[in-house]
Amino acid sequence: MYGIILAGGSGSRLWPLSRELYPKQLLNLISDKSLLQSTFERLTYFMPQENILSITNVKHASNVKMQLSELSSHINLLSEPVSKNTAPAIALAVKYIAEKSDYDPVIIVVPSDHLVNDKEKFLQTVKKGEILAQQGYIVTFGIKPSYPETGYGYINTDGKLLSSGYKVKEFVEKPDAETAEKYLQKGTYFWNSGIFMFKASIMLSEYKNLTPEIYNISNEIDFEKSPDIPFVSFDKMPNISVDYAIMEKSSKIALVELESDWNDLGSWQSIYDVSKKDSEGNVFAGHVIDEGSKNSFIYSSSKLVATIGLEDTIIVETEDAILACKKDRTQDVKQIYETLKKQNDDTHLIHKTVYRPWGFYTVIAQGKGFITKIIHVNKGQKLSVQSHNYRSEHWVVLSGKAFVKLDNKELTLNPGHSVDIPVKAIHSLQNPFEDDLEIIEVQKGDILLEDDIIRYEDMYGRV
Amino acid sequence: MYGIILAGGSGSRLWPLSRELYPKQLLNLISDKSLLQSTFERLTYFMPQENILSITNVKHASNVKMQLSELSSHINLLSEPVSKNTAPAIALAVKYIAEKSDYDPVIIVVPSDHLVNDKEKFLQTVKKGEILAQQGYIVTFGIKPSYPETGYGYINTDGKLLSSGYKVKEFVEKPDAETAEKYLQKGTYFWNSGIFMFKASIMLSEYKNLTPEIYNISNEIDFEKSPDIPFVSFDKMPNISVDYAIMEKSSKIALVELESDWNDLGSWQSIYDVSKKDSEGNVFAGHVIDEGSKNSFIYSSSKLVATIGLEDTIIVETEDAILACKKDRTQDVKQIYETLKKQNDDTHLIHKTVYRPWGFYTVIAQGKGFITKIIHVNKGQKLSVQSHNYRSEHWVVLSGKAFVKLDNKELTLNPGHSVDIPVKAIHSLQNPFEDDLEIIEVQKGDILLEDDIIRYEDMYGRV
Repeated sequence: MYGIILAGGSGSRLWPLSRELYPKQLLNLISDKSLLQSTFERLTYFMPQENILSITNVKHASNVKMQLSELSSHINLLSEPVSKNTAPAIALAVKYIAEKSDYDPVIIVVPSDHLVNDKEKFLQTVKKGEILAQQGYIVTFGIKPSYPETGYGYINTDGKLLSSGYKVKEFVEKPDAETAEKYLQKGTYFWNSGIFMFKASIMLSEYKNLTPEIYNISNEIDFEKSPDIPFVSFDKMPNISVDYAIMEKSSKIALVELESDWNDLGSWQSIYDVSKKDSEGNVFAGHVIDEGSKNSFIYSSSKLVATIGLEDTIIVETEDAILACKKDRTQDVKQIYETLKKQNDDTHLIHKTVYRPWGFYTVIAQGKGFITKIIHVNKGQKLSVQSHNYRSEHWVVLSGKAFVKLDNKELTLNPGHSVDIPVKAIHSLQNPFEDDLEIIEVQKGDILLEDDIIRYEDMYGRV
Repeated sequence: MYGIILAGGSGSRLWPLSRELYPKQLLNLISDKSLLQSTFERLTYFMPQENILSITNVKHASNVKMQLSELSSHINLLSEPVSKNTAPAIALAVKYIAEKSDYDPVIIVVPSDHLVNDKEKFLQTVKKGEILAQQGYIVTFGIKPSYPETGYGYINTDGKLLSSGYKVKEFVEKPDAETAEKYLQKGTYFWNSGIFMFKASIMLSEYKNLTPEIYNISNEIDFEKSPDIPFVSFDKMPNISVDYAIMEKSSKIALVELESDWNDLGSWQSIYDVSKKDSEGNVFAGHVIDEGSKNSFIYSSSKLVATIGLEDTIIVETEDAILACKKDRTQDVKQIYETLKKQNDDTHLIHKTVYRPWGFYTVIAQGKGFITKIIHVNKGQKLSVQSHNYRSEHWVVLSGKAFVKLDNKELTLNPGHSVDIPVKAIHSLQNPFEDDLEIIEVQKGDILLEDDIIRYEDMYGRV
């Protein structure tokens, strides 16, 4: 079996913890592994690591690569140059696998940002799905509704039994409360988990029949020549979901009930639901002091959060933004995100802490003509050999040791030592030593942009 | 007339905006002047600046001095070496004024942290009080209750009229709701504003009769010799309020109704009450984005605060701590403050931004063996000539120009320039230029304490 992990989401509903450039799938929300890493691990229960292909947006590619490389030395990754929803991504990923494989494999497609804990039951479900996929069905995995949820799409099976699942009658959009209650009573409706399984040949022929535009553009792209997805072709793709392009139209859809636990972690409310609560129904994470709150979720990532007498309230504190929200309004976090986007406020886009292949940096202060960062370089890593046209830099080592190349000089700096990097000087910050390195960087200049960087050499292929 | 401003409070109920080392009276809560500055101005309506004496704790003396020097070149300030509540402070302040004055003056005592906007009506009240004070009464100013408040002490006049006020029958403690309702109905009860007025000789004789211990210790202190209050004497003072020591026991107490507006700003609820609200009853200050909150107070001092669907909620964001509190629970902020104190968490004590006579600094990052600050030096100011036994420092100029003395050298540094200050080197950072100066300071060392400072010269008398 092969697996496709869809890792391109932006997770706007978990702002301010998720950001456009550091979305939900990359976060350690529930365990010490990210949701992406947990998803990868879940697939390794029933396929070799080298059969797993991840597809993400180019914006997240280096982070996805970094996280997966902690689990595996075999990383197959496609990067979309622009976001075009799930239909084009799945088409390309299936084509990529079909071309690499000698036979007509069964492929499972999974979102990268859902929670599934029960390994055994998940495995049983996958086995049932595989039977139907081998019979030529496109298999969806559905969850038996336990209450009339209005935030999910539903799949109606109308009770027609197949060998290990149901024949699907129709996909339906998110219902209103009354309709959701009817679906619940009827018993033939399931929540759509976003997990699919099929034989490569079946899916490709459905693409050809049902959405020939995507199929034809996919065929323009030659993965033999280059593993990169060319912008010119991909930008022509229609921006649609696989549900809309294939699932709602195909007559080959079957459903297997997902018997394990499942949560889409689609809002702070759902994070609260899966978290362990105290006797008052509260979840406290980080540096929190409370007096008498109830049924609330308080998350502090950096500063002290003191709460008094709150009820059914969500507070999420990050270095540069704080969310305070009534628990039944967490779906509206998306609107805050959109408002920030409209206002050109980059708080929706990045954290003050930005992760890079070599470590991370945190902007600790900025003003007219300067930016100050703490830069953390993991042991054995190095930043690219680079220069800047508009800014000078000043580095002060805080801990660890720095190996610095500056024009034709090479320096080793100990804690407390500093060096000036003039405008246009060719330089590199490296940490070939045994401990992590931390420095303060003060950037000075009239123009201070992350883009003002000319790379000459880079161990992460970013030249 | 003479005035005494009581400026020693710690304002724990307005945490996290007020801190033990930067209390409520120093904050610009309502206008661009601090409550202390507004109080000083209010007194200048009816007395010369040089007749105003402030008394504060030594911890706040430099900040009180700095704020008052913005308004006046005549600053009379007594610093208590330890906190002993209001009775000892008022005794010493009255004695100080009585000794300086050729006649037996009328003195008004005012808290430094209350809000009074209506200048004309306040003045009328003061004139009425002065008549009774001249007649030998100790005059309290009372507010006619508009609702059964349980958070204030009450004064019962029992309706006995004097020429311009009432004879006071008794002081009563904070009542329960039922008792407060009775007081309101009765009509002879007033809220205690904490403002008093009296002839110096009358007050000193009441101290002598009613609390001879305080009176005798006061007489040990000779302000002719030194304006400083000696610790050895002052530490013997009992820790009690003037209400308890004098007002509740004296038979000479009168009350004048305070006809102006008045608010003790004693909780976030009362700050909300006096603030201008939008059509949904919300007060937003700073960088706030809201979706549908009601009757809430959202204060952001540094980061984005996004709120959704909150009701009757207070959020106060500062650089290092966030408070989220139901509006009817704001009295419990004091408990959070006490909890932090018990836990040795210094978040109750200082802000990350610390004000100094020469400007201020903000701690922007700290870790094992280092602290990084942004230091802001106002134009024309200089830090003391100093050295450190345990830490080295590294300075990078961000904006403005720095004049640096380092052992026997003198340097002028422009933006982007840096200098190393080794352990034990004698140095001074100065800004004799026309613009404010901003530098990054990186302190390095195994021991990093504010106390590790030896001062050789200081323009603010701190050697």
